[in-house]
Amino acid sequence: MKILKMGMVGGGRDAFIGAVHRTAACLDHGVRFTAGALSSDPAKAKASGKDLGLEDSRNYGSWREMLEGELKRPVGERIDFVSIVTPNHVHYEVARAFAEAGIHVVCDKPLCHTSEQARGLIAAARKGNVVFAVTYNYSGYPMVKQARQMVASGQIGEVRKVVVEYNQGWLAGKLEESGQKQADWRTDPARSGAGGAIGDIGSHAEQLAAFVTGKEIEAICADLTTFVEGRRLDDDANLLLRMTGGVRGVLIASQIEIGHENDLRLRVFGTKGSLEWRQEEPNELWHRAMGEPDRVLRRGNGYLCEEARANTRIPPGHPEAFLEAFANVYNAACAAMRAGRGFEERAAYPTVVDGARGVLFIEKTVESAKSERKWTAVGGVG
Amino acid sequence: MKILKMGMVGGGRDAFIGAVHRTAACLDHGVRFTAGALSSDPAKAKASGKDLGLEDSRNYGSWREMLEGELKRPVGERIDFVSIVTPNHVHYEVARAFAEAGIHVVCDKPLCHTSEQARGLIAAARKGNVVFAVTYNYSGYPMVKQARQMVASGQIGEVRKVVVEYNQGWLAGKLEESGQKQADWRTDPARSGAGGAIGDIGSHAEQLAAFVTGKEIEAICADLTTFVEGRRLDDDANLLLRMTGGVRGVLIASQIEIGHENDLRLRVFGTKGSLEWRQEEPNELWHRAMGEPDRVLRRGNGYLCEEARANTRIPPGHPEAFLEAFANVYNAACAAMRAGRGFEERAAYPTVVDGARGVLFIEKTVESAKSERKWTAVGGVG
Amino acid sequence: MKILKMGMVGGGRDAFIGAVHRTAACLDHGVRFTAGALSSDPAKAKASGKDLGLEDSRNYGSWREMLEGELKRPVGERIDFVSIVTPNHVHYEVARAFAEAGIHVVCDKPLCHTSEQARGLIAAARKGNVVFAVTYNYSGYPMVKQARQMVASGQIGEVRKVVVEYNQGWLAGKLEESGQKQADWRTDPARSGAGGAIGDIGSHAEQLAAFVTGKEIEAICADLTTFVEGRRLDDDANLLLRMTGGVRGVLIASQIEIGHENDLRLRVFGTKGSLEWRQEEPNELWHRAMGEPDRVLRRGNGYLCEEARANTRIPPGHPEAFLEAFANVYNAACAAMRAGRGFEERAAYPTVVDGARGVLFIEKTVESAKSERKWTAVGGVG
Amino acid sequence: MKILKMGMVGGGRDAFIGAVHRTAACLDHGVRFTAGALSSDPAKAKASGKDLGLEDSRNYGSWREMLEGELKRPVGERIDFVSIVTPNHVHYEVARAFAEAGIHVVCDKPLCHTSEQARGLIAAARKGNVVFAVTYNYSGYPMVKQARQMVASGQIGEVRKVVVEYNQGWLAGKLEESGQKQADWRTDPARSGAGGAIGDIGSHAEQLAAFVTGKEIEAICADLTTFVEGRRLDDDANLLLRMTGGVRGVLIASQIEIGHENDLRLRVFGTKGSLEWRQEEPNELWHRAMGEPDRVLRRGNGYLCEEARANTRIPPGHPEAFLEAFANVYNAACAAMRAGRGFEERAAYPTVVDGARGVLFIEKTVESAKSERKWTAVGGVG
Repeated sequence: MKILKMGMVGGGRDAFIGAVHRTAACLDHGVRFTAGALSSDPAKAKASGKDLGLEDSRNYGSWREMLEGELKRPVGERIDFVSIVTPNHVHYEVARAFAEAGIHVVCDKPLCHTSEQARGLIAAARKGNVVFAVTYNYSGYPMVKQARQMVASGQIGEVRKVVVEYNQGWLAGKLEESGQKQADWRTDPARSGAGGAIGDIGSHAEQLAAFVTGKEIEAICADLTTFVEGRRLDDDANLLLRMTGGVRGVLIASQIEIGHENDLRLRVFGTKGSLEWRQEEPNELWHRAMGEPDRVLRRGNGYLCEEARANTRIPPGHPEAFLEAFANVYNAACAAMRAGRGFEERAAYPTVVDGARGVLFIEKTVESAKSERKWTAVGGVG
Repeated sequence: MKILKMGMVGGGRDAFIGAVHRTAACLDHGVRFTAGALSSDPAKAKASGKDLGLEDSRNYGSWREMLEGELKRPVGERIDFVSIVTPNHVHYEVARAFAEAGIHVVCDKPLCHTSEQARGLIAAARKGNVVFAVTYNYSGYPMVKQARQMVASGQIGEVRKVVVEYNQGWLAGKLEESGQKQADWRTDPARSGAGGAIGDIGSHAEQLAAFVTGKEIEAICADLTTFVEGRRLDDDANLLLRMTGGVRGVLIASQIEIGHENDLRLRVFGTKGSLEWRQEEPNELWHRAMGEPDRVLRRGNGYLCEEARANTRIPPGHPEAFLEAFANVYNAACAAMRAGRGFEERAAYPTVVDGARGVLFIEKTVESAKSERKWTAVGGVG
Repeated sequence: MKILKMGMVGGGRDAFIGAVHRTAACLDHGVRFTAGALSSDPAKAKASGKDLGLEDSRNYGSWREMLEGELKRPVGERIDFVSIVTPNHVHYEVARAFAEAGIHVVCDKPLCHTSEQARGLIAAARKGNVVFAVTYNYSGYPMVKQARQMVASGQIGEVRKVVVEYNQGWLAGKLEESGQKQADWRTDPARSGAGGAIGDIGSHAEQLAAFVTGKEIEAICADLTTFVEGRRLDDDANLLLRMTGGVRGVLIASQIEIGHENDLRLRVFGTKGSLEWRQEEPNELWHRAMGEPDRVLRRGNGYLCEEARANTRIPPGHPEAFLEAFANVYNAACAAMRAGRGFEERAAYPTVVDGARGVLFIEKTVESAKSERKWTAVGGVG
Repeated sequence: MKILKMGMVGGGRDAFIGAVHRTAACLDHGVRFTAGALSSDPAKAKASGKDLGLEDSRNYGSWREMLEGELKRPVGERIDFVSIVTPNHVHYEVARAFAEAGIHVVCDKPLCHTSEQARGLIAAARKGNVVFAVTYNYSGYPMVKQARQMVASGQIGEVRKVVVEYNQGWLAGKLEESGQKQADWRTDPARSGAGGAIGDIGSHAEQLAAFVTGKEIEAICADLTTFVEGRRLDDDANLLLRMTGGVRGVLIASQIEIGHENDLRLRVFGTKGSLEWRQEEPNELWHRAMGEPDRVLRRGNGYLCEEARANTRIPPGHPEAFLEAFANVYNAACAAMRAGRGFEERAAYPTVVDGARGVLFIEKTVESAKSERKWTAVGGVG
């Protein structure tokens, strides 16, 4: 297996998600972290790169320097792909530049701020003919792949309904005033985009539901709320969904639900059965068929589909978790790179088109939430 | 403790819920099943009463005969209350007659078909000055009472959000064609009313959310669907809610979610913590406070509130369940009767006013579901 | 269905288990509580009977009076059976007298203090030719009956191993000094017998394991401990078991395991699969077959065996619990009485022979625990 | 942080555990896999090393060559430590040689075949003054560290009882005949040692119980069984334990419990409360205090002890699992190496002394199991 060279933009000191991306990318020993522009502040960028053992010549002060520097190297020596792990508002410019230059891109989600930008990134990926993956990491879990395969092969019949929830509680108080870096930029529209909870985690929920069911959202009826006083973005989102094929849905994304940590969960109901999966206990998948005992499928077993088996490392009962799922997304994108593939609309990894759909979803949710005419007053019985 | 005499309307041979009501009413030995008009078919009524050991003189062929017959008896000998367990469309007429005659009423839910009828029943109960209880049996669970007390006493701070679900799957196929009696009348608008799933189980969900939070629903945005071809009522309901005090909510009531049996569950989120309860594991209540380990409260323990402790019979770990909760509703209504109380808007048992609110909720949900303008189209990214 | 008349010995004011027996016996309306000698103190006995609405003529001051009084009545009027719910040390004398007099017996467990007494009771039941049931109530759960049927029909292959636990924590402190009545007599050898935890709950565990597997214990290696200073009986018991057919086992019975309430659980392992059941979530049974997803069977479903279906009242998802299981034991014994049966060694209810086996088990456990030669010292590595 | 150079013995093609060790050692980017002698077959060793990208000069044909080759290099260039991941019978010779040569050792468990060998390895580690870690990987879980801290700080009072189980089912059939490599050597006394299940997984259970409670096993009463015909080692082990400080225990280790995958679990009961942890859901720890609601502590939260917080990477709700715990053991050993430490009896990682205790435990269990005089016959009631 060819070792790929990864450059990273963002993810320096104090950034949480940069370390996750590095560990995930390198977990299975197929990627080497080779170059970086790890902060928008050049001094901090270089200090961070030094901490992490980057060679001086590839420890850049800015992403532009990195792009330029790497392009000067011979093809076999330059980075194979860039991983973009900055706050959201930076994604667009960086991803566009690298993609157009023909360097593969792995970008965190949400892809960018507007669907116009998103179309621009699709165009850039097509023009540069690059692999462009968006790290919807939860779709990397093997039991999610199993769920998708079971739906696709008709094991629950025709899909009727989806309930997807992403429950968190960490923003139930005004954490952004404490100086906590993650809370700070995620609640700032300039850096996070038009969506708060709906952007940060609702987009994961949307992608998970679409990924597993193979259905797309056609119409939305949304209620967005900002519970914490003074916060500038929604921290709670509740949606009714209509999806292709007559599928009905409910989507909940909240960051004020105290006691829920990172509780992404999905239920899919079909004419013959149903599936249930929870991210916090990711090694199991519940399958319930009409009139039969519940079945609990577990990661690593021989009865799972090929893709679920291919996306795991260790035997049943030796749990895998978040980092392994994240690594699976990197592995799929890297496999496409190694295979010499370029731009793809649909692939084994979430593509720039999937990312664009997520941006559109956020936009339309915000639009729907502004309409008050959806409500029917109840009144009293007196 | 005075033994009360119960008359029953409905609940004869083949009726499931009649036996539940009889067992619940008599569980703690405070009620004697004394008289009955157990079917709308006089012959079947009498045969059923004979099966159950009713004396011939109080085994009536119709509810009118029972009302007349009991009123002829001296006050101390006549039934203390009537329990109405017929299909929904019969509730109104029977309840009105008994209430106006000054006989206490315990009536199954939903109370009646229209909010106009519901107002009539409130008036009748007021006129007859009777205890009028509606068997929202799930509010009888001790851990539900504990939840209500914890909310009321501020243990989770100000309520922000409610997620209430009533998930069932038994009507995922066209069971009404099989001759199954429950499925038959529940899917018939003439007997069931304007709501299918939303009436049968959605009304329980509405009552549970209101009971625990002390909030009422002010506005609704509803999506009702009939998935099973040819069915005449909704079998799936998804709602966004706005409740008093700025509370947001999601309500799901479905009978096509295969694998869910009788999965009523409630989550309440406040500014300081949250509560979670599930009917299928009713002996525990999860309480999560910000920044602290989850706490699992269990029925029967000394740390529970007085009302939770008063509504249980056996020690912790010896599980109680559905029948005991149902009995608690009867016990509360009977205690009011023994105490000589008459009409009450709010009481320790769910009142006719609570029942009326449920009917209004169903009506407004059906109205909201007819409006298509609530939807925002999403479109594509291409 | 003929209504049977029940007399009760014990179970007066302050007794917990008497009310459980009365509710269980009458739950399905087939038994009437007709006579009682509810305390060893005649005044308290009569006061208790008055509380509970017994007629004066059948509210006796002692069990001897009751036996005499009932025998004077014509056969059709006298009690059909006696329910004995006193502390353990009283069982023997009462049960023997009623059985010999030809009155059916339902007796709480453990049956009596010594295996010699137990043999006496078998002889008495045989002599009087009566139904003699011992209320091993946990074997009344429908999912326990399902488990038994699955083992018997070979669904897990040949049984290899059993792990049965009865975990409680309520005696972790010296509760008997607080005046708590249950703790008081259960820790007193004169009233409780030679076993503490092993007698009170270990005997349930033994019976459950034997009931489900159809195997009997052949040999025991036991460690009994009294953790609470000054207590006179064991409060913690751990055993290795050898059962018929080469089955190995582990049995844990403890009352000092803080946090466990009434946590009786059973695992049975065979050559083809395994079963797991927990009393605190009694409506489900886990079945795991080699190389397949876990299966969760749930009470009330059509796929269960006939006996499991016959021992339930309400639909799936409407949980049943402790009282219903207890009632099932009464119902099975009463069905035998109604059918005119007399003494039986094995029956649909736990018999006096099963009860005798439990007494022998306690005796042998206490004997085994006294032997110190079972231990192999480990030493150090230094 | 200094990057350490790791050499590996064993873990070539087809070996499962070698990849786990490599991923764990390198997970947090502090170790580089530098040299290897990856099989006892020189050709396979070299082919395996080539697969994994080892430089030719450090891709050795045998562990002796590796030891010699590395010692020839200057101190700063040679490997810092050797990781020994061969079948058990090879551990002793290799570990002894490297330790005596002054190269730090990380060795898989069980440490070796006999307690005599184990004493030899302690002597070698002392002589070479090396860090010698044994990969009892389960003690690397942060919630296990939390449990240990809670016991040590008295949060459950004085420890009374431990129940530790390691339930597996993968050897319920004769897998070793299928050519499955893991099953093959684990059931061969020549390679695995005198213990089957008790050695392979019982030793993990012993270490976990000792680690969390701080108690040592003083005496054992063991029942070892070989259920699968023709197998030469035990596949099921059940033990009663007596530990220091009057602690009682039960230890179950089985590989024939169908449906259990890798179900290591621990319960510790004290005078004030109890703890429960399960490896298959490793991110939570249950704490139950007398008379209080259960508490569920979750990985990553601020309320955990310092060591639990230091041994995690990602926020609450983003689950960590097996590989991360394994990495924690490597990290602790590597931290000791970086700090210049040598031989230690007790340390933040499991030491050679802990490993020796495990070998003694296996030896004594086998000895105890041979004694039949521990059993008390039960007989019949007839």
